[in-house]
Amino acid sequence: MTLNESPGHRSGLFVCTFVGLRNRQDIIVARATPAGVGAVAVVRVSGQGVFELVDRMLKKPVSNAGSHTVHFRALWDEQGLIDEALLTVFRDPSGYTGDDTIEISTHGSPYIVDRLIQALCRLGARPAEAGEFTLRAFLNGKLDLAQAEAVADVISAESAASHQAAMAQLRGGISAEISLLRTRLIDFAGLIELELDFSEEDVEFAKRDELMQSLSETLQKVQLLLQTFAQGNAVKEGVQVVLAGRPNAGKSTLFNLLLQEERAIVSDIAGTTRDALEDVITIEGLRFRLIDTAGIREATDTIEKLGIERTYKYLEGGAMALYVADMAESTPDVLEEDLRALSGKTQHLLVLGNKIDLLGEWDAQVWKEAALAGGSGSFLALSGKNADDRQRLKTFLLENSAFKPISGDLTLITNQRHFHAFLLAESALKRVIVAVQNGTSKELLAFDLREALAALGEVTGEITTDDLLDSIFSKFCIGK
Amino acid sequence: MTLNESPGHRSGLFVCTFVGLRNRQDIIVARATPAGVGAVAVVRVSGQGVFELVDRMLKKPVSNAGSHTVHFRALWDEQGLIDEALLTVFRDPSGYTGDDTIEISTHGSPYIVDRLIQALCRLGARPAEAGEFTLRAFLNGKLDLAQAEAVADVISAESAASHQAAMAQLRGGISAEISLLRTRLIDFAGLIELELDFSEEDVEFAKRDELMQSLSETLQKVQLLLQTFAQGNAVKEGVQVVLAGRPNAGKSTLFNLLLQEERAIVSDIAGTTRDALEDVITIEGLRFRLIDTAGIREATDTIEKLGIERTYKYLEGGAMALYVADMAESTPDVLEEDLRALSGKTQHLLVLGNKIDLLGEWDAQVWKEAALAGGSGSFLALSGKNADDRQRLKTFLLENSAFKPISGDLTLITNQRHFHAFLLAESALKRVIVAVQNGTSKELLAFDLREALAALGEVTGEITTDDLLDSIFSKFCIGK
Repeated sequence: MTLNESPGHRSGLFVCTFVGLRNRQDIIVARATPAGVGAVAVVRVSGQGVFELVDRMLKKPVSNAGSHTVHFRALWDEQGLIDEALLTVFRDPSGYTGDDTIEISTHGSPYIVDRLIQALCRLGARPAEAGEFTLRAFLNGKLDLAQAEAVADVISAESAASHQAAMAQLRGGISAEISLLRTRLIDFAGLIELELDFSEEDVEFAKRDELMQSLSETLQKVQLLLQTFAQGNAVKEGVQVVLAGRPNAGKSTLFNLLLQEERAIVSDIAGTTRDALEDVITIEGLRFRLIDTAGIREATDTIEKLGIERTYKYLEGGAMALYVADMAESTPDVLEEDLRALSGKTQHLLVLGNKIDLLGEWDAQVWKEAALAGGSGSFLALSGKNADDRQRLKTFLLENSAFKPISGDLTLITNQRHFHAFLLAESALKRVIVAVQNGTSKELLAFDLREALAALGEVTGEITTDDLLDSIFSKFCIGK
Repeated sequence: MTLNESPGHRSGLFVCTFVGLRNRQDIIVARATPAGVGAVAVVRVSGQGVFELVDRMLKKPVSNAGSHTVHFRALWDEQGLIDEALLTVFRDPSGYTGDDTIEISTHGSPYIVDRLIQALCRLGARPAEAGEFTLRAFLNGKLDLAQAEAVADVISAESAASHQAAMAQLRGGISAEISLLRTRLIDFAGLIELELDFSEEDVEFAKRDELMQSLSETLQKVQLLLQTFAQGNAVKEGVQVVLAGRPNAGKSTLFNLLLQEERAIVSDIAGTTRDALEDVITIEGLRFRLIDTAGIREATDTIEKLGIERTYKYLEGGAMALYVADMAESTPDVLEEDLRALSGKTQHLLVLGNKIDLLGEWDAQVWKEAALAGGSGSFLALSGKNADDRQRLKTFLLENSAFKPISGDLTLITNQRHFHAFLLAESALKRVIVAVQNGTSKELLAFDLREALAALGEVTGEITTDDLLDSIFSKFCIGK
């Protein structure tokens, strides 16, 4: 396999292979605002010819209106007046999708929205599929793929940290990083391609020391990005914290203490609590998903039946373990024994020594030593009866979450797909480096380099397939 | 009591007494789109100084932008970037409220909307109360009160007929009717006021024959409008249909037949089914609320316990009664007896003779005669087992609902408040007519005329009070 690219026309190499999962010529329409009754609803309709189509519902046209202007109009169908609405005109290429678009802001009545969409469809529009407006924005070059994916993340972000990471990606943070890496490698790929064309003469257009320099810098950057994924994922999905501890150690008291303020806020958001055993709190913008396996644990008190099997599954997924010890009723030996069963499975084992109000600080020191001996990374003595310990508990969780506040210039990988693409790039880059070092065949070198470029290009969508686009955009909401 | 008005400055007479339930100078802010996650959310912020306030969140101002223009901007608070959004600028007096307004179209994330509203409030805006944007539109003379009320009706309309009635009112249908009536009467009120000023000379500026002509035309129009209320109310709230009939007459079968298609549609709309005993179907754009009192009725089968007491309450409220007779198992005599118990309470008594498949059409004739003898207005023989009878049943209900499709120029009263104001106007007008006919004192004449004018003015809001406005607008959604 040879590469068919020279540096002069590199854009020809990794073109988007997408040709048309859906018909891009169609005029598409969807409600863009959430379902339900409200003051205002927005219906988005987009595609070539949309102005003429919408004009057919109006007594006074908008097709001659300038981009980014708003017009009050009565909308009519064959049954009569649908609504009086505000129509915002976006002309190719300056709107969200890049295509001609009208956003119709109606009274927030589901009846009106349904009737309007039906009327537009009778005139020739078709209902948009999930994410189709953003897909068009991507296909029209308004966003790259990582930015398009960030749109969905921005919409679903529920905490300050996840919102910040998504906004950074939307504004092109990750794309900028990759683009820089890729451009330099594409230059080398082009030179090696030239060498293949002149293979009988055994020339080296690509200087090997410069290539190695570039490869190792790229690999380093890719590995740095890979390392951000644990944090990026925690930021996006929340940090999982598995609760453990013997019955009556005071877990419920401590977690009621922790949750009392946030619970009301959390319950506003549909779907935050995924099952009855999970609770979510947000500490300084970072979400923690507290998973209680108490139901199992409290059946008996043998170690094996402490719900450990279930806890293990979470720990394997990267969750933190938070063990609560009853310092008044249990013993440090029991704590140490319990921790040893847990500690092999996680590097994130924290211990709360409860009921400090019944102990002296000096006694707690023995417990702390047992915790560290058992494998815990950190220990906090506190009392669930002391309201002031709430803030100490929150700080303890935050400090031990391995989460650092995101600085303005740190790019986080938050997306599983990007993580896997970077993993592929990493292994391909390592192979290229070995190939250069060993002077192995240029064909293999070119092949591995191409694979690394492809993996990086998948993140921004410079390389893509219909299936990939379908799988990405089908997770969007309709109307976006 | 005298009138202080002459025809030359009549607008001074019935000024809006509203002075400021809430502070009109505040900048108010609210989410305008339904709660929840979506592609787009709209936050509306309105009031004097709003452009300067919003500018403080932007790196590039919008305060110099023209009305009805749209601007892509990044929005910032002290924590950082909130979102990239579209800002639509409406300048006093051309937007919805009449005040300077910005509508901010963000990504449809509850997190972003909350953070944006909080940021705006920290800069000096305050959360808008329910209906406050529309209240301002009313106070700024963009809408009269009947139109403002129509906004809420438009939003909550769930059928073609109720939507049409609300749109007609929003476009000023009822206001136009009243305004015409009121203007002529105000002319006469002014002339009679003049007569009172010259009362010692016993002059008549208001020609009594012309006054009588105008009064009787106004009365006639008011009575016509009053008559539309039954239909208007049915259009807005749906026609109530109380189901009656002995156990096992086949009610369930008939109503499953009727409901089978619509049930899925109906269940999409939150709150349509008000309790477990109620079902809603829409026939040609008109809603029918089917109320089943079967739970009571099936306890025993004595007439008194047929749920009649409960049924009576609905019938007194204007509901139709729909009695199902089992023509295979019961007898025409039982039908006639049951109907007599119902017929005194309603003029809307319909009978369905079920199980026609087990009878000949000729036998059904006897049942029809019994139904009419018992006081039923209409009779339909059918079979719940015959799917084709579904359409016949729907047509039967529609034809007997006293509902006529609304023609373009018929104004319907759909609002209880308007109905009561027109009732007051009617009785005052009748007193004025008697006063003119009997030549009673001009003071009384003026007093009654003033009452009629006040009642009419209440509908459009030319006469109003804080309490009235509060009660009207508090029923709106926030953000409208």
